Amino acid sequence: MTSAAAAQAGTAALPVYRASLEPAWIDYNGHLRDAYYGLVLSYAIDDVMDHLGLDAAYRERTRCTLYTVELHTHYLHEVKATDALRLTSSILDADGKRIHLGCRFEVDARDGDPLKVDGGPLTVATGEVMLLHVHQGDKPATAPFPGTVAARIDALKLSAEDSAAWGPRSRRLELKRRPAQ
Amino acid sequence: MTSAAAAQAGTAALPVYRASLEPAWIDYNGHLRDAYYGLVLSYAIDDVMDHLGLDAAYRERTRCTLYTVELHTHYLHEVKATDALRLTSSILDADGKRIHLGCRFEVDARDGDPLKVDGGPLTVATGEVMLLHVHQGDKPATAPFPGTVAARIDALKLSAEDSAAWGPRSRRLELKRRPAQ
Repeated sequence: MTSAAAAQAGTAALPVYRASLEPAWIDYNGHLRDAYYGLVLSYAIDDVMDHLGLDAAYRERTRCTLYTVELHTHYLHEVKATDALRLTSSILDADGKRIHLGCRFEVDARDGDPLKVDGGPLTVATGEVMLLHVHQGDKPATAPFPGTVAARIDALKLSAEDSAAWGPRSRRLELKRRPAQ
Repeated sequence: MTSAAAAQAGTAALPVYRASLEPAWIDYNGHLRDAYYGLVLSYAIDDVMDHLGLDAAYRERTRCTLYTVELHTHYLHEVKATDALRLTSSILDADGKRIHLGCRFEVDARDGDPLKVDGGPLTVATGEVMLLHVHQGDKPATAPFPGTVAARIDALKLSAEDSAAWGPRSRRLELKRRPAQ
């Protein structure tokens, strides 16, 4: 949808999450430990949930929440302790109870100086998650999104074209070998 | 290779990592936050590195280390605060400078009681990482494993058959839809 249409539907773009890197997150390689990309992504998802109306009050009232069922991360560049890291989320796809969320990890300043690559920030990682709407009863069970939330998700969902252009995308991990000469 | 052959090659199986769950890792859904599966996996990889001879002394001496370039996680079951969580790693594949590692997250006790499913522990998640051997000079560059490390990796690598049976495996994330009736 266009941003004008999104504005009409009462939905601004998904929030950009700005991560504060803690010194303990830097590992023996001198950069952000792989697992902490996942933690800032997890916090970014919390912000997305708030934005969609799946916030703490909703969760308490309905006993419904989102479960992460699958995650794929591409680590493209090292993140240094002084980097200004921000995460930009996009709804790549969705149905009545699932959200396929893509998240771009970008660095636009290092050591206090702007960092530009081809006029834009450096993409240091991409992450994709499959999120499932679950009612937490005695036994957790999937549940459809309420109408207001479904409408917000639909209004924010990327067009098929934009979703297809998003990447690098998740895939089967394997060592590809060149055929022997 | 058989375990007898592995013993002959001077390589025991990869170490099993037993995770201690910190209370701060439990989220508003009442179970282990998605990102902390990644943190215990990251610690398990450190143990695997030590076992293969890629330990702190090696890293300091050679300025070589492993970079995580890609990660895929399947979250299969919730992990509770009291769960005894252990991670069992397998080398699914490898070449001269890359290791494709698979990790099974298992719970075999909950609230202090043994937890058995079909006579074995409950698999709560699987994770796969692609690890790349890198020399950290002025500019990081890939580097081949030294011979002793390559031999250990080769001795521990699963057979093609065992590797193919390992799962659930990484894949492209997407919402599959049934064709309209």
